[in-house]
Amino acid sequence: MSSQPSASFSVTLRVELLDPRQVASVTRVLTEQGAVVTALDTIESRPGHLVVDVTCNAIDEEHAGELQHALEELDGVHVRAMSDRTLLLHLGGVLQIASKVPLRTRDDLSMAYTPGVARVSEAIRRDPSAARNLTIRRNAVAVVTDGSAVLGLGNVGPEAALPVMEGKAILFKRFANVDAWPICLATQDPDEIVRTVELIAPVFGGINLEDIAAPRCFEIEARLRERLSIPVFHDDQHGTAIVVLAALLNALRVVDKSLDAVRVVIVGLGAAGVAIARLLLAEGVKDLVAVDVQGIVTPEDPSLDPARREIALRSNPRRLRGGLEEAMRGADAVIGVSRRGAIAPEHLALMAPRSVVFALANPEPEVDPDVARRYAEVVATGRSDEPNQINNVLVFPGFFRGLLDANAREITLSMERAAAHALAAIVAPEELSPAYIVPTVFNPRVAPAIAEAVASRIEAGA
Amino acid sequence: MSSQPSASFSVTLRVELLDPRQVASVTRVLTEQGAVVTALDTIESRPGHLVVDVTCNAIDEEHAGELQHALEELDGVHVRAMSDRTLLLHLGGVLQIASKVPLRTRDDLSMAYTPGVARVSEAIRRDPSAARNLTIRRNAVAVVTDGSAVLGLGNVGPEAALPVMEGKAILFKRFANVDAWPICLATQDPDEIVRTVELIAPVFGGINLEDIAAPRCFEIEARLRERLSIPVFHDDQHGTAIVVLAALLNALRVVDKSLDAVRVVIVGLGAAGVAIARLLLAEGVKDLVAVDVQGIVTPEDPSLDPARREIALRSNPRRLRGGLEEAMRGADAVIGVSRRGAIAPEHLALMAPRSVVFALANPEPEVDPDVARRYAEVVATGRSDEPNQINNVLVFPGFFRGLLDANAREITLSMERAAAHALAAIVAPEELSPAYIVPTVFNPRVAPAIAEAVASRIEAGA
Repeated sequence: MSSQPSASFSVTLRVELLDPRQVASVTRVLTEQGAVVTALDTIESRPGHLVVDVTCNAIDEEHAGELQHALEELDGVHVRAMSDRTLLLHLGGVLQIASKVPLRTRDDLSMAYTPGVARVSEAIRRDPSAARNLTIRRNAVAVVTDGSAVLGLGNVGPEAALPVMEGKAILFKRFANVDAWPICLATQDPDEIVRTVELIAPVFGGINLEDIAAPRCFEIEARLRERLSIPVFHDDQHGTAIVVLAALLNALRVVDKSLDAVRVVIVGLGAAGVAIARLLLAEGVKDLVAVDVQGIVTPEDPSLDPARREIALRSNPRRLRGGLEEAMRGADAVIGVSRRGAIAPEHLALMAPRSVVFALANPEPEVDPDVARRYAEVVATGRSDEPNQINNVLVFPGFFRGLLDANAREITLSMERAAAHALAAIVAPEELSPAYIVPTVFNPRVAPAIAEAVASRIEAGA
Repeated sequence: MSSQPSASFSVTLRVELLDPRQVASVTRVLTEQGAVVTALDTIESRPGHLVVDVTCNAIDEEHAGELQHALEELDGVHVRAMSDRTLLLHLGGVLQIASKVPLRTRDDLSMAYTPGVARVSEAIRRDPSAARNLTIRRNAVAVVTDGSAVLGLGNVGPEAALPVMEGKAILFKRFANVDAWPICLATQDPDEIVRTVELIAPVFGGINLEDIAAPRCFEIEARLRERLSIPVFHDDQHGTAIVVLAALLNALRVVDKSLDAVRVVIVGLGAAGVAIARLLLAEGVKDLVAVDVQGIVTPEDPSLDPARREIALRSNPRRLRGGLEEAMRGADAVIGVSRRGAIAPEHLALMAPRSVVFALANPEPEVDPDVARRYAEVVATGRSDEPNQINNVLVFPGFFRGLLDANAREITLSMERAAAHALAAIVAPEELSPAYIVPTVFNPRVAPAIAEAVASRIEAGA
């Protein structure tokens, strides 16, 4: 697919003009070059001199350079500066601390801090369970990363991971009023990661692991779940799996197929692929085939780590051998959590009628969704500029809201399934269509519905 | 000193009355019992039945029980419930996360989070120093404790320490717009504390160690300072030392004595005592005597840890031997950072004319300030209900503001001295008096003045 200008790459050009009438040429040239002009502000104006800030959506850095160059070509036009609005937005970070209580008078201070706070401390010392009510713990989540698998960028390290964790933290707040704080660790050693999270856990009611590379992420999560009495959720695994299951439930309604009768192929057995496989198996998918870079995953492969081996043992009931081609023959649904180009149009042609294609690689899907729609009835991607965006933001805020509200100590597949069903149910049967299988992230019913579903499973002891 | 009712122990009694005219008896009885009634709200009212919420300041838990009992003695009066306003204030914690950017539209999301945030991450990967501008790091401080020496309560552990760290965090925000997050560690092992703080450091521009017991705190701070390229500040040491130096500078102006000519006694050589000694020596105090539970501290004592040994070697120029009595003879100033009762009136009687007494133990000073004022010209305590409150809140917010603003990598005695002088200078010469040597925490000039002093030392490379 060809990339398009987007707000995620919005630039502001400060342009100096000798002739005010040239403003029209500026916006014309930008538009001709493929930019989308979104704002124009006059900064200085006097005879023979005009300075304007032109804000426009570009495609990428190269495109922004081309825009600047094209403007400089105009007579009497000079670009003083070009700034990237996304970078400007992140200046100084995107989150902050706020007080929930007034601190105007000495009395306020004496209750919020010393000497009054000593009594709060004493109350918790006498009864440690009081920490849940008397501190931020009941609403606080650590967003923990080692910076080893950040977005599509790879192993960028803890400093470069921080803006992503900050973004995540403010989404937690925006969508579910959860207070999340980023923890970016200066180590990629599993033992150290586990121990550090264990040691900082007293402040938090839940741990959200984020952007930690596979297979390390499986071990870290498993060990933390064993050691901590608060829930540990690796969003790249479970958040993705839950929204994929929700989307698949609705996609199968659209194509009128039953989950226990369909053949599902997962392309890419990283963190997301493993978690999707586990959740689909728990939900009742009987014919699941996982394809990795080596081809169809089978238990005979000696290179598999324990997590992938588990999937190999529990999938592929028809004992297929080979690559993607063999897996895709007659498949009803394919879920790509791999990389651009991993799925070819010829593979889609092998699928059963009324097929479902989820191409979730970011920012570029495994296959161009325009092409996929020629073969499949329902197509979903991770992109916000396509219908059916499979977006973890739909899940993690509400999921943690439910965990915190119900004082969860662990996370179960039963909760994940309940969350997926609650998310799927936001789209009413009469609204379902090939272009609408998941709600938008701004739908205000999403987070409360997921939170309630999760909390009700906890209360049911499941 | 006798304790007095205070807002830090404010309770609300929900009282049911059969006869509305009894309200006057309720407030009269509470006042007679020594409470200070601050509010009265009617909750329900119908003939022969009135329910009121009476809020009053009590002295302590026992006193609150007595108040309740005294009301129950009244005919036709029943106390339905008594609630502690400080505990109510801390319900759900006192701090929260807030977004600094709008998240209303998809465009907002695409810049704050994916896909736009990938570009911010890339920018930091290319140039790690960009993390200072593009993340919260430039304004974020970790408030780190192991819960081993919390307020006057002792070793209460990480959970019970959390409300105190939360209170600290909101003071950071309130007084200097610093974003501080509590880190309460589930370990008291110095190696683990050092390593954990090192591993979580990428998110922070500074580390505030808090309520960690001596002598462990000295080693932890020293090792962290060696390993980290961000400033590490143990507030119980340095915050206290700075405000003490500021108060001493002004107290000596009041009694017209010179810092390099006075004899100073420090009672209690814990974290605060050691730091005060170091800072006073750096400032030019020549005759300093430190007294610990064993008596006057001398280098011959084999039980001293390295920090205390350093003070023993650098103090006591007259080679005094003995206890507090020997130390106090002819002393111009005594600084108590010990415990209630550690200084007796007879000790004060031994001091030089126009003496200065800082009795900083909390909540009960080493000596009753009313008694101390009979002997000394200037008396200061840690209490908010006495003149001259020596309160760390005067220092740490502005000190970190300066560190963060100037991108400090370490903390020097030169910065601490500059901060003390800036704080002392807030009280103008014509304002100075025995009852006014330090400004109130609500003086808006305090934090900016300290921040500027600290930043200017950093810029001067000192």
